[in-house]
Amino acid sequence: MALRLEHEVVTLHTRHPFIIARGGRSDWQVVVVRLIDSDGVEGWGEAYPSGYYGESIEGVQAALTAARGALPANPFDLEGAEACFRKVAPQSAAARGALSTALHDLVGKRMGQPLWRLWGLDPARAPKSSFTVGIDAPEKIRQKVAEAGQYPILKIKLGSDHDEEILKTIRAVTDKPIRVDANAGWTRDRAIAMLPVLKDYGVELLEQPLPPADLEGIGAVRRASPGIPVVVDESCLVATDIPAVAAYVDGINIKLAKCGSLREALRMIATARAHGLLVMVGCMIETSIAITAAAHFAPLVDVADLDGAALTVDDPYVGAGIDHGQITLPTSPGLGVRRR
Amino acid sequence: MALRLEHEVVTLHTRHPFIIARGGRSDWQVVVVRLIDSDGVEGWGEAYPSGYYGESIEGVQAALTAARGALPANPFDLEGAEACFRKVAPQSAAARGALSTALHDLVGKRMGQPLWRLWGLDPARAPKSSFTVGIDAPEKIRQKVAEAGQYPILKIKLGSDHDEEILKTIRAVTDKPIRVDANAGWTRDRAIAMLPVLKDYGVELLEQPLPPADLEGIGAVRRASPGIPVVVDESCLVATDIPAVAAYVDGINIKLAKCGSLREALRMIATARAHGLLVMVGCMIETSIAITAAAHFAPLVDVADLDGAALTVDDPYVGAGIDHGQITLPTSPGLGVRRR
Repeated sequence: MALRLEHEVVTLHTRHPFIIARGGRSDWQVVVVRLIDSDGVEGWGEAYPSGYYGESIEGVQAALTAARGALPANPFDLEGAEACFRKVAPQSAAARGALSTALHDLVGKRMGQPLWRLWGLDPARAPKSSFTVGIDAPEKIRQKVAEAGQYPILKIKLGSDHDEEILKTIRAVTDKPIRVDANAGWTRDRAIAMLPVLKDYGVELLEQPLPPADLEGIGAVRRASPGIPVVVDESCLVATDIPAVAAYVDGINIKLAKCGSLREALRMIATARAHGLLVMVGCMIETSIAITAAAHFAPLVDVADLDGAALTVDDPYVGAGIDHGQITLPTSPGLGVRRR
Repeated sequence: MALRLEHEVVTLHTRHPFIIARGGRSDWQVVVVRLIDSDGVEGWGEAYPSGYYGESIEGVQAALTAARGALPANPFDLEGAEACFRKVAPQSAAARGALSTALHDLVGKRMGQPLWRLWGLDPARAPKSSFTVGIDAPEKIRQKVAEAGQYPILKIKLGSDHDEEILKTIRAVTDKPIRVDANAGWTRDRAIAMLPVLKDYGVELLEQPLPPADLEGIGAVRRASPGIPVVVDESCLVATDIPAVAAYVDGINIKLAKCGSLREALRMIATARAHGLLVMVGCMIETSIAITAAAHFAPLVDVADLDGAALTVDDPYVGAGIDHGQITLPTSPGLGVRRR
């Protein structure tokens, strides 16, 4: 069953400029991948090229070109296909994540099963997703919180010089649970000084307070924390990172764009559980292809932040939804994503 | 889709008394489990009640009785069903392993897919299986090695007071690769003294030299080893055991009768890989039901010892085979096991 690979660059726009500790913007480029078999069945995937991890649109395209010569003769051998992608495209987890997603979509369609069912999961067990409020001026923050009306949990980006103002602005207009992501934007002293402030504002989770390599520092923040779990994102990309971070953190955030494979995401969940860690699934600014791929394994995690497509105004696809926070998974085979 | 649970005790006989460091015998009892759905589709599983782990036929039967009231309304929700089994039958990994296998068999049959295919694997990637020679007198050892003619790798049980004689007897009649399993039968000093002997006889792997809790000792044996990897079996039952043993061992041996779930076996593989460990799959004296269940995930492991049914003379089932060591996986849906 010979496969054909097509890809196209898609530009997405967020409703507002989406700003985190290391900057932001309003337009975002992703690469949508299609694997088409000889019967015309299509599997779809998506690559988000994160500059922070050294990725680019050009790098993803180069990795896909390399993968074109290494497409599996047997797409059902997902393990073998992904091992091959790691060899030919080691530099782009984003591209490999897109290929992995597209193969899973294709296999699910050929077997007539949604991915969550192939994985033995119950979609109803997915946790509610948060909705992210990026760094902004108070009046914009108030507007965003109002727009997030249907979402029961907010994720707040901090790591600027007006963190307290942001928390205060949000708490003045809502009593929803809030989670904080500093995106590696704090120093140890700043993070430890912020802990009682986070506690005062009722923050229930703290993500990546310090730069990724400062595990000792993250461990110190965790020890000083007044019961707020500390989760790492930028410090933990793949399953082999978990043993090294496990002693310093309460949990990890899994993203397809970092780990480069749906099978690796499942391996990360297994490894994190073996270490007694909390498991979170996150995303980038992505279309419903990538968001739906991550949503399929959400029934296995504790915390979900899958608002990447919901933050955009021009997602070309429809897949997993978020209904008042509850992730709704498609019941059609494979990913279950269709064009809008 | 209401499920019905049936079970029966099956007595198996090994060709020879099968003796390891802590004793042995010729007759072995297992419990075969059948889950039958309202369409009459049957899923099969098998429980080996290991006295070493506190299990018994009666204990398995009691656990199955407890599980009868907790059978899943939706068998496709394997994750939820297994979580429920852990609650109602925490004491019997053997019974839970049988239920897990039966559910997987049923789901594979309903989806029309063999388990290895649902798991995205290529059966050709399973490693060759060893064939085990139990502790015995020299003339019997020679007979067993002759009977093991078609098997390219031997696994030798040691831990008695004539270990060297056994190795010498075997090496006098064959130059096949040999692996040694001491089944926790050595002291630290004895194990370290045996290392050069094992090396001289060309042993390529050493399993469980010391009692399970002596991880420091196992680590000392490993440090003293002249390149022979040290793998633990009795020290590692489930995935949460892996972080604690990882620093002391080269690998782990996964058995369904210990971990109590096919999903847990996959989680153990993922966790072991994240720790850079070698992964082995092992078995008990079991029918082809349990052996085939383990064989389905063998494409993910490095070392296989799946001779449990091959050692018997009255296995009532046919499933995965071993052809000159190569594990052959069924291509029919589910486990692919049938009555002989």
